[in-house]
Amino acid sequence: MKALQYRTVGAAPEVVTVPDPEPGPGQVLLKVTAAGVCHSDIAVMSWPAEGFPYALPLTLGHEGVGTVAALGAGVAGVREGEAFAVYGPWGCGACAKCAEGKENYCLRAAELGIHPPGLGAPGAMAEYLLVDDARHLAPLEGLDPVAAVPLTDAGLTPYHAVKRSLPKLLPGSTAVVIGAGGLGHVAIQLLRALTPARVVALDVSDDKLRLAREVGAQEAVRSDERAADAVRELTGGVGAEAVFDFVGAEATVRTAGAVAAVEGDVTIVGIGGGALPVGFGLLPFEVSVSAPYWGSRAELVEVLALARAGAVSVHTETFSLGDAPLAYERLHSGKIGGRAVILPHG
Amino acid sequence: MKALQYRTVGAAPEVVTVPDPEPGPGQVLLKVTAAGVCHSDIAVMSWPAEGFPYALPLTLGHEGVGTVAALGAGVAGVREGEAFAVYGPWGCGACAKCAEGKENYCLRAAELGIHPPGLGAPGAMAEYLLVDDARHLAPLEGLDPVAAVPLTDAGLTPYHAVKRSLPKLLPGSTAVVIGAGGLGHVAIQLLRALTPARVVALDVSDDKLRLAREVGAQEAVRSDERAADAVRELTGGVGAEAVFDFVGAEATVRTAGAVAAVEGDVTIVGIGGGALPVGFGLLPFEVSVSAPYWGSRAELVEVLALARAGAVSVHTETFSLGDAPLAYERLHSGKIGGRAVILPHG
Amino acid sequence: MKALQYRTVGAAPEVVTVPDPEPGPGQVLLKVTAAGVCHSDIAVMSWPAEGFPYALPLTLGHEGVGTVAALGAGVAGVREGEAFAVYGPWGCGACAKCAEGKENYCLRAAELGIHPPGLGAPGAMAEYLLVDDARHLAPLEGLDPVAAVPLTDAGLTPYHAVKRSLPKLLPGSTAVVIGAGGLGHVAIQLLRALTPARVVALDVSDDKLRLAREVGAQEAVRSDERAADAVRELTGGVGAEAVFDFVGAEATVRTAGAVAAVEGDVTIVGIGGGALPVGFGLLPFEVSVSAPYWGSRAELVEVLALARAGAVSVHTETFSLGDAPLAYERLHSGKIGGRAVILPHG
Amino acid sequence: MKALQYRTVGAAPEVVTVPDPEPGPGQVLLKVTAAGVCHSDIAVMSWPAEGFPYALPLTLGHEGVGTVAALGAGVAGVREGEAFAVYGPWGCGACAKCAEGKENYCLRAAELGIHPPGLGAPGAMAEYLLVDDARHLAPLEGLDPVAAVPLTDAGLTPYHAVKRSLPKLLPGSTAVVIGAGGLGHVAIQLLRALTPARVVALDVSDDKLRLAREVGAQEAVRSDERAADAVRELTGGVGAEAVFDFVGAEATVRTAGAVAAVEGDVTIVGIGGGALPVGFGLLPFEVSVSAPYWGSRAELVEVLALARAGAVSVHTETFSLGDAPLAYERLHSGKIGGRAVILPHG
Repeated sequence: MKALQYRTVGAAPEVVTVPDPEPGPGQVLLKVTAAGVCHSDIAVMSWPAEGFPYALPLTLGHEGVGTVAALGAGVAGVREGEAFAVYGPWGCGACAKCAEGKENYCLRAAELGIHPPGLGAPGAMAEYLLVDDARHLAPLEGLDPVAAVPLTDAGLTPYHAVKRSLPKLLPGSTAVVIGAGGLGHVAIQLLRALTPARVVALDVSDDKLRLAREVGAQEAVRSDERAADAVRELTGGVGAEAVFDFVGAEATVRTAGAVAAVEGDVTIVGIGGGALPVGFGLLPFEVSVSAPYWGSRAELVEVLALARAGAVSVHTETFSLGDAPLAYERLHSGKIGGRAVILPHG
Repeated sequence: MKALQYRTVGAAPEVVTVPDPEPGPGQVLLKVTAAGVCHSDIAVMSWPAEGFPYALPLTLGHEGVGTVAALGAGVAGVREGEAFAVYGPWGCGACAKCAEGKENYCLRAAELGIHPPGLGAPGAMAEYLLVDDARHLAPLEGLDPVAAVPLTDAGLTPYHAVKRSLPKLLPGSTAVVIGAGGLGHVAIQLLRALTPARVVALDVSDDKLRLAREVGAQEAVRSDERAADAVRELTGGVGAEAVFDFVGAEATVRTAGAVAAVEGDVTIVGIGGGALPVGFGLLPFEVSVSAPYWGSRAELVEVLALARAGAVSVHTETFSLGDAPLAYERLHSGKIGGRAVILPHG
Repeated sequence: MKALQYRTVGAAPEVVTVPDPEPGPGQVLLKVTAAGVCHSDIAVMSWPAEGFPYALPLTLGHEGVGTVAALGAGVAGVREGEAFAVYGPWGCGACAKCAEGKENYCLRAAELGIHPPGLGAPGAMAEYLLVDDARHLAPLEGLDPVAAVPLTDAGLTPYHAVKRSLPKLLPGSTAVVIGAGGLGHVAIQLLRALTPARVVALDVSDDKLRLAREVGAQEAVRSDERAADAVRELTGGVGAEAVFDFVGAEATVRTAGAVAAVEGDVTIVGIGGGALPVGFGLLPFEVSVSAPYWGSRAELVEVLALARAGAVSVHTETFSLGDAPLAYERLHSGKIGGRAVILPHG
Repeated sequence: MKALQYRTVGAAPEVVTVPDPEPGPGQVLLKVTAAGVCHSDIAVMSWPAEGFPYALPLTLGHEGVGTVAALGAGVAGVREGEAFAVYGPWGCGACAKCAEGKENYCLRAAELGIHPPGLGAPGAMAEYLLVDDARHLAPLEGLDPVAAVPLTDAGLTPYHAVKRSLPKLLPGSTAVVIGAGGLGHVAIQLLRALTPARVVALDVSDDKLRLAREVGAQEAVRSDERAADAVRELTGGVGAEAVFDFVGAEATVRTAGAVAAVEGDVTIVGIGGGALPVGFGLLPFEVSVSAPYWGSRAELVEVLALARAGAVSVHTETFSLGDAPLAYERLHSGKIGGRAVILPHG
């Protein structure tokens, strides 16, 4: 089959022909109907050769959707032809975290050499994807593959972040979203669908601020050194009960801390390298600062349900597998508005 | 191998020789080191032939502990010779409930014909037990098999019930345990280990009230028509923030409702056929009444950790597999103090 | 001043002239701008003389909104002329429940003879209302008095009920509202504003089912003996994660139990005299059944914030104080669509 | 009456005679039976004149216990002679935070000029203390005043911190307490009484490590650059589900971050000026870092209940009011083992 592989550190990914995978015991083979292109792939491909964590060549794609093409021995509860989204952060399935479906925080993945597809294991940018266990499949139940595929990461990651703060986002509260791009514009929709909080978006780009309003933000504020004062003013001095930073740079985490309310949450999702110092007197009382990673199995089911109800959608641009290298190029140079999706059979 | 089977509705269970099981893909074969005898087996064996839910013959035993004897194809993360307790309420592993480890509430078990071992699937009262998936194994990590095996049901079930009420069992609160027998005397220990609540035990038997005090109840009260007044008095009129009824008869659920505090929990675990009516004005404001079933995978790991720390233990009496029918007889006639455990290789 | 009083058991309430109240230390005198007429007043006026719990004459009105007319000695943080809604279920302010703002569940109210206005203490159906403590005042901050006043009970009561179930009302879940009248049609709006759950309304009246759809219910189902099957079918057999019964009659609580999902909540708000029996095997596993009363201080602030954001509104019909007896008559005979509001100075 | 006052910035506190206070409307006058000496008073007395936040002279003492000597007009539910502990972090009583009893986080205290006794308002180091509102009184119900008084801060503050992490401190978990002094040795007792977690204490002093073990820590580890490795080893590499830093210096917050488990809590209570940077990749996934302040009204009631049950006690050394300056001197020079308590009438 054809697959998009990252083959040499520093080189561009290439479409190559690799052997067709076959499902072993407990595994499921999916015919990939859509695979998502993600900024973090570009980050991976910028890492130096020394200490590069994955074996090469690596088939890319940690966002995948497909239909069941073949079942390994012993797989029950799944039928050929059924359409599924793939839960990406695979774990051992048995440790204390996995027992609660938090495979993103598996305690034994490193020890057992378990990697997500596209981030160590062969990914979804191929005609077929081998899924390690049927439990990693979430039924599409009618969702369009292209619409669904970005939800497995660009939907699940902000969903997990937002869910952390639901108990604080009561009527009268305010949620601040910093960075209204790929994940941020999904977070705004999630906040509107899940909470009665007023949503304030911060971004440096007018286009993104416009998008933020279109997808539901009641306020859109330029993200600069006056942003914190603006949010304080909008909230009558109280600040925001939850702040989600999808940039994670020094400047944005500082703003995040500055706009948080007493007992508020600051959740840093962006991998921009910033750090918010926490200590007595540095932030309003009992602000809780955290940096999560991806989400749980149950949360993927929930975010798909939201999409099915029309409450969240991602702007997408599709590419054939042959054009996948181009999609990465365009994403890298900021020319993708929303999310690029590869159609391996398109 | 030898196995204890319930073969004919209404007859006593018999030790018979059955083919040695072999693990299919994803399955694990355990050499059983201990299997628990439970009152609910006796209930099952009292059901009429018409509508009997399981295929016969049925190898009994839904509480099992063993060491890995063989691995099916594709099983990872488990090694031969390792000792495990078996999580009994098997589910599909993939539905929304299973995704959170609540396989006891699997949404697809009925549809897919999945049954717990000993309650539909071949159980632990045999030399070997086939476990459907490695995720159903919780590491013993040094726990004695005989001590551990009752925890898989007689420990997990009250643990799940108690965990529901932890947020209400704050300092100054009171927990009432009705029925200080097999599950109840574990619940008392759990409450003492997990909460600062004062524990009041209710029972009709002086022996059980004595046992209740021995395992940690600060108060032990005869369970009769004056019990509710006694508890009200002990709590300064406030009542109990949590009530656990391990009998579940008409008289006990009535007492449970009568001793609950405003916003308290009443959890009915016993299968004594009682029913507590809930409606405006019938109970103190916002008492929450519920009847759960067994517990989750993560909870089994937690209850084993408690045992390892010495915080909970079950009085046990051991029998060989050949004497298993005798163990049931003695349990039936009330002659087992604590929990009977079968040693299939003993 | 003029006040509407219930003076003799069994008689209709009358408008009479009573002495003008004056605020003692810590108290606040409100000029009443709106007072709500509630079904529960009619229930109170139907109680027999024997055992009648309040002293007569009793000024009615437990829903009140007004502006500060005078401050008692020692009151701080409140200024004359400011507009407030009155939190009705007054407590002692100091016990463990009141320390969390749950004055509706005050542990000492009975002992100290504390009653809500209109339900023991002089109520809001008068030109002036004496509020026992400034903490019972929630700022209107621009809300219209007529729109705001029903929220103090007909808004707060369903809000409290809904808030109990928020953790269960995740994407993909279903909430059932039984009775789409005064409280029920508010509950539907609250569920839509606070959760991504699909809302299914049940009622016996076509008008109410139409209203239910207008205020946001995605499904409206006739409440009869086939209703439970209809809800099961709508939910693919799973049932509803939360059921709110604003009728509370025998038939409706039975339906409530029948449509609940495993681990679901059934909340009985209506005072129709029904009782749902809970015990092992009677309801889906771990359904939690409860009958709450009114709500907390913080919750009133939250429900007012929702109204301010336009997320909840109550259909109202206004009457002068002189016509208040007429308002009760019309409510009694089912002629009030929504909520009757008295304007004591109108 | 006599009172200990901080009169001049930089000078030692002095015992002086001041007018006897009289309770205004809603206030309660306590005859002080015990007042606690706290490190934070020493911090306050080290602040420079410029920007000093309180008016001088200031009667010290934010930990107070006493009996009711007189009631202001309008106070109900409290009787002369009754013994109470004083909840210190006074708020307005009416804002959204105060409505939940979180007066420590009152949204209007600054605006309304409300200060805790001893930290702005006249404190407990006097023969009589004026309490602003009866809701700030928590009944002693038999507790010894000397034993009770440190609980109002040195008990309530760690209790609030511990309570934040209760849901994470399940069987098998580990809690780390950094600094086994005044607050830390209470935290260890609280953790043992409230959770099944294994408690690991870290300190630089052998005496404190010995005390830590005496009050219940299962492990006591020297707090140095190898401490984090030691804790990792004790927890099989997992780390601690909750870390409480009662020092809050640069070195200790760094250790706190280094020993936290995935999804763990780090709570910084100490005011040592340290800051823990939070950002993606800096700490284990989703560690939540927070710095709270004091506790809520309900929590004070809970911590007193724990003391009544014998689950927490503070080592105390008593001084007369005349010797109060000496007590501060001795505390400052590290000569107080535990907590110094002033007996104004002793």
